[in-house]
Amino acid sequence: MSRVYDRVALIGLGLIASSMFWAIKRAGLAGEVTGYARSEATRDTARRIGLCDRVCDSAAEAAEGADLVVLCVPVGAMGAVAAEIAPVLKRGATVSDVGSVKRHVIDAVSPYIPEGVHFVPAHPLAGTEHSGPESGFAELFDNRWCLLVPVAGSDPAAVARLRDFWEGIGSNVDEMEADHHDLVLAVTSHVPHAIAYTMVGVADHLRRVTESEVIKYSAAGFRDFTRIAASDPTMWRDVFLTNKEATLDILGRFAEELFVLQRAIRMGDEKYLFDYFTRTRAIRRGIIQAGQDTAAPDFGRSKVKP
Amino acid sequence: MSRVYDRVALIGLGLIASSMFWAIKRAGLAGEVTGYARSEATRDTARRIGLCDRVCDSAAEAAEGADLVVLCVPVGAMGAVAAEIAPVLKRGATVSDVGSVKRHVIDAVSPYIPEGVHFVPAHPLAGTEHSGPESGFAELFDNRWCLLVPVAGSDPAAVARLRDFWEGIGSNVDEMEADHHDLVLAVTSHVPHAIAYTMVGVADHLRRVTESEVIKYSAAGFRDFTRIAASDPTMWRDVFLTNKEATLDILGRFAEELFVLQRAIRMGDEKYLFDYFTRTRAIRRGIIQAGQDTAAPDFGRSKVKP
Repeated sequence: MSRVYDRVALIGLGLIASSMFWAIKRAGLAGEVTGYARSEATRDTARRIGLCDRVCDSAAEAAEGADLVVLCVPVGAMGAVAAEIAPVLKRGATVSDVGSVKRHVIDAVSPYIPEGVHFVPAHPLAGTEHSGPESGFAELFDNRWCLLVPVAGSDPAAVARLRDFWEGIGSNVDEMEADHHDLVLAVTSHVPHAIAYTMVGVADHLRRVTESEVIKYSAAGFRDFTRIAASDPTMWRDVFLTNKEATLDILGRFAEELFVLQRAIRMGDEKYLFDYFTRTRAIRRGIIQAGQDTAAPDFGRSKVKP
Repeated sequence: MSRVYDRVALIGLGLIASSMFWAIKRAGLAGEVTGYARSEATRDTARRIGLCDRVCDSAAEAAEGADLVVLCVPVGAMGAVAAEIAPVLKRGATVSDVGSVKRHVIDAVSPYIPEGVHFVPAHPLAGTEHSGPESGFAELFDNRWCLLVPVAGSDPAAVARLRDFWEGIGSNVDEMEADHHDLVLAVTSHVPHAIAYTMVGVADHLRRVTESEVIKYSAAGFRDFTRIAASDPTMWRDVFLTNKEATLDILGRFAEELFVLQRAIRMGDEKYLFDYFTRTRAIRRGIIQAGQDTAAPDFGRSKVKP
């Protein structure tokens, strides 16, 4: 794989940015990668572990002269970061992001993008429950989707270049419209996280009843939920607040559906339960056939650093 | 590890029984292991893959002369199987089971246990989303809990021997009272499964809106739910119908909690969301410290046959 950008800047150095860095290095996609994190402790960690060729002490310093600037901060912070880097952006540069919500990011960032700079929002569908600069690994995006969400007037050449970049990182790349993205992600990611957080919250109350047993005997099911619910709190607070409409829509449908299941249990409706549980198996088969899960342990999410 | 029982009979040859067989062989816990499954196709498969030393054509034939008979059928079928094998049970034998619900199994099976036969219910907290005789592997129970739920008048020697057996299979063994077991499992397993099934059901409806995208872009969160929701439909129908009271209690608490979260999203209550998501992380840490999850990929659930 050859170089796609001379200089890449990663703003925010958590799981996604650190994984991007190792993947960029693995494939030789950039000449120099600069990085910035708001927290001094994170910057120190990054310097210690060799994350980024140069760790800068401001977002503007990291972004200055970059051919690609990727905003890897929580969705709620994207606008402020865009405002900060806007004055130093190089003519012809591309600004992108990795936020889990796209309409809000477009609305927040677009006003700050200067004339002659390309804005191409993106969302790599990959993650683990770990966060921070030390949680990244080069393989995180391998064979996962990265959705590009071009805005009105996005330069096709800039979009194509960003696609080359994400393919070089290991992703499959597709394009999607912003509002549609936010609905699909509400179903596949945002509401499942809300539900997992809630179930873990219920168990937290019950700990006072069952003491440590809920944890000690945590079986499959709950254990998987706790893994989902261990994800970064700031990131998820922002996701729910900035994709409010779709999240509430899907949560409403979920509550309805749950009440129907609850009623079937109460009424002892054997046939309903059996048929319902049989149908859900088919969806699982669809996911395996679509290549979004594997027999490979842990979805290939093990931390393996280069 | 030395022999604990001369003859063990496994009634029902799904994931749990087949994993037990490979673990029994791995540790040399029994002289002969007989097996029976209601479906002729399952019995044929068992014979083909060498599952059980002897596959019998009736439950009674398999149970006759056994020192330990383990009922590995769905919870709703336990009573009928107990009735079928009761006449052939050897004096001094132990009958046990692996059901996910204990009060119902005790009520359904106890009346059929003959004088001089010991009944010691059990529940190994282990599983995968796969089912059937070919899904088993010897390591399934390694370092997982197996809960023994002795009934009034259970012979301490019979309980101790079953404990040796499960420890030989690889489990950590603990004892618990039946109703308490059913409440703890409702929290850690039964309601999480109900929720996962429901979320997958919601996505199923939405597929008509978003076509194949829900599957194609299934991210972490939903993907984990589909794995949970791919579990055996008969088993789970029976779990919900036979642990109805605890399941409905916990489902009710869950719905309340979800509405509070939903309201916080609607109201844009940043602090509530951040604090809530932060608290759930602590539970996850507790589970890792309790040894119920590992950094090891896939919870060590890979299929590795001896």
